[in-house]
Amino acid sequence: MKQYPRSLNKLIHELGKLPGIGGKTATRLAFHILSLTDREAEDLAEAITGAKHSLRYCSVCGNLTDQEKCLICSDPTRDQSLICVVETPQDVVAMERIREYRGLYHVLHGAISPAEGIGPNDINLKSLITRLQGSSEVEEVIIATNPNIEGEATAMYISRLLKPAGIKVTRIAHGIPVGGDLEYADEVTLLKAMEGRREL
Amino acid sequence: MKQYPRSLNKLIHELGKLPGIGGKTATRLAFHILSLTDREAEDLAEAITGAKHSLRYCSVCGNLTDQEKCLICSDPTRDQSLICVVETPQDVVAMERIREYRGLYHVLHGAISPAEGIGPNDINLKSLITRLQGSSEVEEVIIATNPNIEGEATAMYISRLLKPAGIKVTRIAHGIPVGGDLEYADEVTLLKAMEGRREL
Repeated sequence: MKQYPRSLNKLIHELGKLPGIGGKTATRLAFHILSLTDREAEDLAEAITGAKHSLRYCSVCGNLTDQEKCLICSDPTRDQSLICVVETPQDVVAMERIREYRGLYHVLHGAISPAEGIGPNDINLKSLITRLQGSSEVEEVIIATNPNIEGEATAMYISRLLKPAGIKVTRIAHGIPVGGDLEYADEVTLLKAMEGRREL
Repeated sequence: MKQYPRSLNKLIHELGKLPGIGGKTATRLAFHILSLTDREAEDLAEAITGAKHSLRYCSVCGNLTDQEKCLICSDPTRDQSLICVVETPQDVVAMERIREYRGLYHVLHGAISPAEGIGPNDINLKSLITRLQGSSEVEEVIIATNPNIEGEATAMYISRLLKPAGIKVTRIAHGIPVGGDLEYADEVTLLKAMEGRREL
């Protein structure tokens, strides 16, 4: 089609496969890459294959790691009595950003979604059960799945699974975001905010 | 800083160096890359190093190529009597998109800019002179540098350089873009449009 040499077309094509990168952005990125030094371009290429090859999931919690156990599971100063259940490794980072939570995590890599045919066995849930059975230290499991249909269904499922075993299961609060405007809050959020009201 | 494994941090860092890619986009792209198959990630990495290693500038016109001569210079069906002078290889592609011009190109890789200390010897101009001296076929040099101060200065310089040698030098027309609105055109464009008026 266009009068670009083949290897440039290939680079534009590959970059265009990335999410949110359209044809024009891919072309702009490709020309930028051509303007890099050989060393810089190698660094970028090696970062891609390097991350891809060295990264794996923590054998305990399912978080991303380049070791057998992730940084959090390997940290003896973390509170071993708390496990926060999240959907993705990105959610772990979001939680860590608040610098308040000092417990452990469990990453499900998804959520139960009957509509998409994703059942309890398709997410990293069995290992949570095994983990709880193997430890007497855990006192509370905090479910921090997303506040949507799949996340709620997953929270409900895990809650029903763990409660009979006598484990305290909690769910993070839903409500009006800090700085948010009541007037523009949707009904469901407002309802959740009302339900979650606390005495002052 | 963040609780990402080192190789993931490195990937986010490298992606974040690309133009227009901020921290959040870099993180999103990095996680997307992790979700690719090994084969797909290798393809992307190889496209980067492949383009970087195989691409060079055409020995004749300065356009991007993976051969010694670019696709356009190697095409005997192109009109050898016309050379269109542009600033970048991207401009060649823009011109080719109109599917009307069948002549050759010359890519300057920049424009004369006294403000930035870029003189005639800092752009790919000498090779244009050599090229014209070596060929008796060229009848017209069309200057299609950008319609800004640098582009105009470059056009003027080339024009003064070539005209004494008896070569016809033309400049692409400036004016109101097709579909544009006269009311919103800036004064300089409008002035150029008036100056470039043609009899109907």
